[in-house]
Amino acid sequence: MALKIGVVGTGNMGQYHIQRLATSISNAQVVALSDVDVEQAKRVAEAAGEARVYSDGHQLIGDDEVEAVIVASPGFTHEEYTLACIAAGKPVLCEKPLAPTTDACLRVLDAEAGRSDRLVQVGFMRRYDDGYRAMKASLDAGHVGSPLLMHCAHRNPAPPPGFTSDMMLTDSVVHEIDVSRWLLGQEIIAATVFTPRRSSLAAEPLQDPQLVLLETDGGVLIDVESFVSCQYGYDIRCELVGESGTVALPDQVGVRLRQEGRSSTEVPADWRSRFAPAYHAELQEWVDGVLRGEITGPSAWDGYATTAVAERCVEALETGRRAVVDLAERPELYD
Amino acid sequence: MALKIGVVGTGNMGQYHIQRLATSISNAQVVALSDVDVEQAKRVAEAAGEARVYSDGHQLIGDDEVEAVIVASPGFTHEEYTLACIAAGKPVLCEKPLAPTTDACLRVLDAEAGRSDRLVQVGFMRRYDDGYRAMKASLDAGHVGSPLLMHCAHRNPAPPPGFTSDMMLTDSVVHEIDVSRWLLGQEIIAATVFTPRRSSLAAEPLQDPQLVLLETDGGVLIDVESFVSCQYGYDIRCELVGESGTVALPDQVGVRLRQEGRSSTEVPADWRSRFAPAYHAELQEWVDGVLRGEITGPSAWDGYATTAVAERCVEALETGRRAVVDLAERPELYD
Amino acid sequence: MALKIGVVGTGNMGQYHIQRLATSISNAQVVALSDVDVEQAKRVAEAAGEARVYSDGHQLIGDDEVEAVIVASPGFTHEEYTLACIAAGKPVLCEKPLAPTTDACLRVLDAEAGRSDRLVQVGFMRRYDDGYRAMKASLDAGHVGSPLLMHCAHRNPAPPPGFTSDMMLTDSVVHEIDVSRWLLGQEIIAATVFTPRRSSLAAEPLQDPQLVLLETDGGVLIDVESFVSCQYGYDIRCELVGESGTVALPDQVGVRLRQEGRSSTEVPADWRSRFAPAYHAELQEWVDGVLRGEITGPSAWDGYATTAVAERCVEALETGRRAVVDLAERPELYD
Amino acid sequence: MALKIGVVGTGNMGQYHIQRLATSISNAQVVALSDVDVEQAKRVAEAAGEARVYSDGHQLIGDDEVEAVIVASPGFTHEEYTLACIAAGKPVLCEKPLAPTTDACLRVLDAEAGRSDRLVQVGFMRRYDDGYRAMKASLDAGHVGSPLLMHCAHRNPAPPPGFTSDMMLTDSVVHEIDVSRWLLGQEIIAATVFTPRRSSLAAEPLQDPQLVLLETDGGVLIDVESFVSCQYGYDIRCELVGESGTVALPDQVGVRLRQEGRSSTEVPADWRSRFAPAYHAELQEWVDGVLRGEITGPSAWDGYATTAVAERCVEALETGRRAVVDLAERPELYD
Repeated sequence: MALKIGVVGTGNMGQYHIQRLATSISNAQVVALSDVDVEQAKRVAEAAGEARVYSDGHQLIGDDEVEAVIVASPGFTHEEYTLACIAAGKPVLCEKPLAPTTDACLRVLDAEAGRSDRLVQVGFMRRYDDGYRAMKASLDAGHVGSPLLMHCAHRNPAPPPGFTSDMMLTDSVVHEIDVSRWLLGQEIIAATVFTPRRSSLAAEPLQDPQLVLLETDGGVLIDVESFVSCQYGYDIRCELVGESGTVALPDQVGVRLRQEGRSSTEVPADWRSRFAPAYHAELQEWVDGVLRGEITGPSAWDGYATTAVAERCVEALETGRRAVVDLAERPELYD
Repeated sequence: MALKIGVVGTGNMGQYHIQRLATSISNAQVVALSDVDVEQAKRVAEAAGEARVYSDGHQLIGDDEVEAVIVASPGFTHEEYTLACIAAGKPVLCEKPLAPTTDACLRVLDAEAGRSDRLVQVGFMRRYDDGYRAMKASLDAGHVGSPLLMHCAHRNPAPPPGFTSDMMLTDSVVHEIDVSRWLLGQEIIAATVFTPRRSSLAAEPLQDPQLVLLETDGGVLIDVESFVSCQYGYDIRCELVGESGTVALPDQVGVRLRQEGRSSTEVPADWRSRFAPAYHAELQEWVDGVLRGEITGPSAWDGYATTAVAERCVEALETGRRAVVDLAERPELYD
Repeated sequence: MALKIGVVGTGNMGQYHIQRLATSISNAQVVALSDVDVEQAKRVAEAAGEARVYSDGHQLIGDDEVEAVIVASPGFTHEEYTLACIAAGKPVLCEKPLAPTTDACLRVLDAEAGRSDRLVQVGFMRRYDDGYRAMKASLDAGHVGSPLLMHCAHRNPAPPPGFTSDMMLTDSVVHEIDVSRWLLGQEIIAATVFTPRRSSLAAEPLQDPQLVLLETDGGVLIDVESFVSCQYGYDIRCELVGESGTVALPDQVGVRLRQEGRSSTEVPADWRSRFAPAYHAELQEWVDGVLRGEITGPSAWDGYATTAVAERCVEALETGRRAVVDLAERPELYD
Repeated sequence: MALKIGVVGTGNMGQYHIQRLATSISNAQVVALSDVDVEQAKRVAEAAGEARVYSDGHQLIGDDEVEAVIVASPGFTHEEYTLACIAAGKPVLCEKPLAPTTDACLRVLDAEAGRSDRLVQVGFMRRYDDGYRAMKASLDAGHVGSPLLMHCAHRNPAPPPGFTSDMMLTDSVVHEIDVSRWLLGQEIIAATVFTPRRSSLAAEPLQDPQLVLLETDGGVLIDVESFVSCQYGYDIRCELVGESGTVALPDQVGVRLRQEGRSSTEVPADWRSRFAPAYHAELQEWVDGVLRGEITGPSAWDGYATTAVAERCVEALETGRRAVVDLAERPELYD
């Protein structure tokens, strides 16, 4: 009764999902893989069990045994594979971004919006993090009153090779964009990016850190520190300020060590350890939902809106000015 | 390729495992259930899928399709079912206690000890808790030096109906007995139980709270507060004191709320929410291990030694005196 | 050998200092008080011991027995009294602000700058807070590397009657302006003020909360949430982000209470309880310094620069635009 | 109007008080010092101002200008100087212990008990610590219900030279003895001392750590870890368990540093930094009380009872058995 899944893309992110599906997700089975590097796909397939291997994602999507698809190939290919899944009527979990441009995202929206039910889910895994979920539950329960402000920080010890100042917005801050939209149930309508002195420890010519200011249609202000060369660890912080109180992600986790004059806890080393349980929950709940016939996670609309905001952030960084987000009308499917 | 599992006992604990196996454990399938209350077993089976139902655990164990067994029936039946599994050569995850008396435990040991490999695992799930695991990793890495003392508290908001003063030792403290043996890699050789004034909020005639002092063969002293009517929540605390530092379970988890003059985090309401991830890991790792042909969790020896210590704790509570634990010789299988 | 002090102004702030001087500051004696409400001054004098009472601050400053002066009268009178103290060659601790306008502040600077030593200290007590001092020590010791960003929040449960949106900048944020200049050893060169939706719990027409963005001449960005109707308590937060780490004010103090499902600590009710030790240290160190012939606390320059920045914040709030701070040249006396 | 104080003993503790009186205590003046090492007393006197110097504490006590006395000489001399103060009718703050033996303490009690008012205060400064005071306020306010258990730890990084296993009880645990009596308003009636393996980092032949179990006449059990070679810092911990909740000393103070993969706060290096504010409050409140004619701090009875319990702890350590405390009848003066 397991869901038969095909995975497009066997790079880091693809392997991360495949490994999890093979070892710890219930009611799921990886039956097919594809990668332009077919030798890599074969190696991954061996580790995963008996999956068929394709060099072309479209062949995988066309495989009759494949009931649902995960797209984990490079971002510029997301549009075509997601469109192919929609055309084939197969549920698809597309890694973020849905597509790198708003135009591409709109084409996916157009393809799905005519349907009576959703097929596309976008891989914003923070919505599955216990901390963010408890923040949302607390907000929704009225513990802090109506929201006014959010303060966020997104810190990585060091960026991957080739990381650019734009990617600090389109790859990193994009998570805060999605999760704040979801927490608040509001759309972001404008973005401004401020740049302090760059860290001497950041790789040239990265403008690192950046301070992003987002405004929602509900009048909430969100400030996000994006700092990908912070050295000390992977640190995700979020405090939501309401009219009568605040709720924040836990800022100390793990066992407490007292030694050599300090009382300390560990800061996670990277996103893998910090968000492993969220990736697990995302995948398990997606599998469960597909088997039940329900797609409830981040939608193509969320993918579109998030890309639209990230694009305006890049514009704001370039111009030094406030950039207004002009969203398309939201199709009924996403209400 | 899923492991085909039979579950003996469909009460609270049995259902807790069956529900998890059906929905979130990878590579596992519940194929048979048994309960003396066969109607209840049938209701549970429906929810779980298509499991066969038996009124007798021995029939389930004898079912050829059943590859591995979980024993979640009342404690006094654990011995017979575990012995039957050993006789049938089937891996068995037996809920704690392995058996209620040391004599019964020894009979299980005898049955298994002649084998060249283990079949029995006892359900001490704390060894699978992230916090305890990080404590052990920290200790083993030498962060705090050689262990000297452990301070523990085991608090429940209120006891279940019929809970007795003895059960505070055999049902509650038994977890601290096992986990401290495991953390330290040492056996407990003596126990004393001290009784402060009983709480006026404890149900008569419960002696609640109790303070248990355990001594290990490595000279470590362990104090355990057992308090099952603490009112405010389910709170498990543990600090290990070494020669150069201490390491402790996290004492604040979850999101931080600031409201009405307080900055606060939630205390778990019960063991289900506190240890759900540990139960999950216990079950997934047991399934994975059985499929690989390895049983690495708490052994029959651990079950025996823990019961032996708990028995002496009960004696110490009754006599008001230090009770010495006299363990049998440990069979080679458990080295 | 006690320092003989005269206090101008016996309102809330004056009484707060007088009470402290009378009961817990060493080597200090209040010998004279003045207030336009001379009856109030008399009542306060009785409580304080045997101080002489004047209706005019200038008479107090002219009193030969008065060796040093504390100015705690309304802000618009600070300039004239401080100038009188400089003219009389008497050390003066002037409550913030040094003066409400930069022009007035410059007149005080002009009067003092020709001297070879300082007489004026401005009452920015946060520099005497253990937390801020430890942050500065940590920064100066290189624990976090060169500073890049500061995140601050300044929350009051409710504003005093008559509090205005401008006062959120000139009375509240002014503390963050001074303390960040001091922590960083940098001047602030620009300010922008952002306004989220106002809280429905804020008194009309208060624009509450506000988000202030300050830029320093060293390229550091400082964001300050100013929220004077936050309901839940008096909460002062500050995190300084450096190139290799961050250092932050403690965010949980006081005893930990576990009850009714929560683990919590108290949030201070108001600035009096939060900063009482800082006010104590400010006063004791000022007394000690005057007796030694040294004035080392916040200078007239600090008073001027802080007022200058606060003025630009008010402009930024009104215009919705970034306002540039144009400081006068700093006299050598303040190097 | 300052209180004229004489200090007997100018060693470490004496200097600690004298320095504080000279620089930061209001309404106090050190007018006389005595020490058997008169040269040392002279050096200290110079630093303190113009105090007269005696080689004999009795001469100091007899000095007509001396209005109140602090006894900070070695413990074995406390009795005679305190008795002399009582005979002279002068208030005396005697450092702990009141006297090293219960017999000596009883002689002081006898001398004072016939009076209609108290003269003697014993230097148990923890009662002046903000944390313990907040714990008491919380307990007295009913936040945690009636007390049942207390868990304490008293850790020093390393002992002073010559420190013995007995002194871990009479010099260290004595603080927990006093403060728990005060918190609970109960007397301790029995003590048992348990000894884990000694730390290999403890100086021979120190039995370090020790675990002390105290029983009160109200049925509360108190466990105290005493560990004077803990290496990592000076760490004082206390949690009071009531029928409906618990209240504990803050376990993290000071600024939070995030660097090199850890989020940490500092553990105090020694008792001086940890309890400096408590010593300050003790001294200021004693001075204020003497000037008002009230002695409200720890009494001679508290000094006696604490010494009596510490003596039984030493017996318990030697015998390995529970030792019963048999207190004298409490004179009315101490009700």
